[in-house]
Amino acid sequence: MTSVLFDEIGVLYTGDPEREELANAAVVIEGDAVAWVGPSGEAPEADERVDVEGRCVVPGFVDSHSHLVFAGDRTEEFAARMAGRPYSAGGIRTTVEATRHAADSELATRTAALVAEMLSQGTTTVEIKSGYGLTVADERRALEIAGAFTEETTFLGAHVVPAEVPADDYVRLVTGPMLEACAPHARWIDVFCERGAFDGDQTREILAAGLKAGLGARVHAAQLGPGPGVRIACELGAASADHCTHLTDSDVEALASSGVVATLLPGAEFSTRSPYPDARRLIDAGVTVAIATDCNPGSSFTSSMSFCVALAVREMRMTPLEAIRAATYGGARALRRADVGVLRPGARADLVLLDAASYVHLAYRPGVPLVRQVWREGRRVV
Amino acid sequence: MTSVLFDEIGVLYTGDPEREELANAAVVIEGDAVAWVGPSGEAPEADERVDVEGRCVVPGFVDSHSHLVFAGDRTEEFAARMAGRPYSAGGIRTTVEATRHAADSELATRTAALVAEMLSQGTTTVEIKSGYGLTVADERRALEIAGAFTEETTFLGAHVVPAEVPADDYVRLVTGPMLEACAPHARWIDVFCERGAFDGDQTREILAAGLKAGLGARVHAAQLGPGPGVRIACELGAASADHCTHLTDSDVEALASSGVVATLLPGAEFSTRSPYPDARRLIDAGVTVAIATDCNPGSSFTSSMSFCVALAVREMRMTPLEAIRAATYGGARALRRADVGVLRPGARADLVLLDAASYVHLAYRPGVPLVRQVWREGRRVV
Ligand SMILES: [Zn+2]
Ligand SMILES: [Zn+2]
Repeated sequence: MTSVLFDEIGVLYTGDPEREELANAAVVIEGDAVAWVGPSGEAPEADERVDVEGRCVVPGFVDSHSHLVFAGDRTEEFAARMAGRPYSAGGIRTTVEATRHAADSELATRTAALVAEMLSQGTTTVEIKSGYGLTVADERRALEIAGAFTEETTFLGAHVVPAEVPADDYVRLVTGPMLEACAPHARWIDVFCERGAFDGDQTREILAAGLKAGLGARVHAAQLGPGPGVRIACELGAASADHCTHLTDSDVEALASSGVVATLLPGAEFSTRSPYPDARRLIDAGVTVAIATDCNPGSSFTSSMSFCVALAVREMRMTPLEAIRAATYGGARALRRADVGVLRPGARADLVLLDAASYVHLAYRPGVPLVRQVWREGRRVV
Repeated sequence: MTSVLFDEIGVLYTGDPEREELANAAVVIEGDAVAWVGPSGEAPEADERVDVEGRCVVPGFVDSHSHLVFAGDRTEEFAARMAGRPYSAGGIRTTVEATRHAADSELATRTAALVAEMLSQGTTTVEIKSGYGLTVADERRALEIAGAFTEETTFLGAHVVPAEVPADDYVRLVTGPMLEACAPHARWIDVFCERGAFDGDQTREILAAGLKAGLGARVHAAQLGPGPGVRIACELGAASADHCTHLTDSDVEALASSGVVATLLPGAEFSTRSPYPDARRLIDAGVTVAIATDCNPGSSFTSSMSFCVALAVREMRMTPLEAIRAATYGGARALRRADVGVLRPGARADLVLLDAASYVHLAYRPGVPLVRQVWREGRRVV
């Protein structure tokens, strides 16, 4: 097993709550795992040495919320919305149409391109949802394609009710034959709990069925308005409630006491010109916060975790430290992973070298591609 | 002279008001200039062929406002400001201290790195200001360094009054010996007309002296509050009034009737958490609008024109077409250049190939590095 020493790290953000930030640090990886973390002068010998030259190293980003398996083009919808037309969940159906008609190979090629784009920007762990198929065969296909790129696959048959099926019938389909076909290909189940998508009773029923089938739960909750999604996520022990833009006081309390992660998706607010979630309120209440891209062709077509970090600082008043934590450790918590989003012995050797002296630059230098090297499972990939 | 055909361009944005946008287009360059623009099927023969594969081509970005010659580090100031401390012009003085103490070679190396970073993001023309020297020797040095990278050099001795000199003495210095030393190395003169920097009378006096010395005028106007800067820019026939965040109705009328370009710098509002300028009001009044990065270590450390385009659409309600126009044609107008920011026969062969079907993606896919190839003066540089 080859070992590599990353030496002369100016600022190391570890994502490890025990010692989160080190100056003048070094990291040694061995094979696909982190072997040692500590002060630069005390590092053990290694087969290879990377001189980081005073730059910053962070764990690979963990993007815990994305919708990458789709076809079609919604560029015009975006331009029209920016000219004043409000975002509606109905737009999802245009992507469903295009995705159903796409060949397997087209979907796989597009997904691969987005995963590669993410990797080149430092994202070494990504969750990918289905949800643009909405038939048994198309949802299973999306999860099979996603599964070629990540172990964090999420069955989102309950994205919207497809135009051709009555809502009650669709919930029966999602909780019955579709779940049965999809569960073997998914780690998680998710529901878009929102006016115009699925209500509280439907959300509870679908998540409960998923849990029974052995999946973990996560919920799209309170994106466009207040709703029961966060409460249900907490009641059912979901890993994460995502969006969390419109929260009641009891939602915040439920998140804090349940330990459910609040995954904030500021790219969606950016690209739909909506008010941002109140991250400070969540953090001050003791809620664990993650940030993710929500990468999808409708409401947030960014694949850049750095951009989301910059938005978290500018728009959600997170400190740069809170933002990098949410993009690494927080994302890992939202996926219940202890092996990623953190640099400590035993963790997966996923590292990002930034072309900057500090992770603060992710917010201080917005839009600038600062990712200089990406290592995933101990191998340099960018 | 080698000719290159860029063929199968899905969307070509030309920056030429005569025919601004073409689908299924081609461009031929010959040596360092554009030779031909038209429909894909009608392109003349060329020595080489680049298959753009349906992607989008735009002129190289024209970043008409930047402050790249500096030393020192203000990361902590940024982090503190994001935690709630307001931005004040005084922070400039910390950069002045560091810049004065830096070796020529350090300043040149840092400037080169930022220019290269800009180029890799598609900026093929950049204006660079002095303004962190504030002595005769240090201002001249900054302009000499800037002049190694661009012909668009701007003497900004009137950035702030340095701590050690009384204001009246400093204005005499700037309009006297400093101007004399700097004018040979500059194309433009600029003044930071703002409470805490230079007032209306001082601004007028300094710009008038610069004009008399053969420089063109540009003004930092109405960034932090309303002021006389825009009016003075219009009276004196400046090329551009920059920032334009706090405008009166008569400012807008003056810009429209004088033809002075309003250069908007949304990176500064992003990074100081300030309200954005009202681009719609300016465009609807017939003002020519440019967008630029304002790249500097204090108030806007982005070098990304793509990021500024995304902000222009999200925050200033410009359409994607207006935003790409402002980032190319508008920037060229702000520098009174007819040879850049445009793809038409005779113009400089500065082209950017985007990894996207349309320039709309610069806003639709914020933060994603979409610049795939950059050609400057007919040569591929990225
Ligand atoms: Zn989503
Ligand atoms: Zn400026």
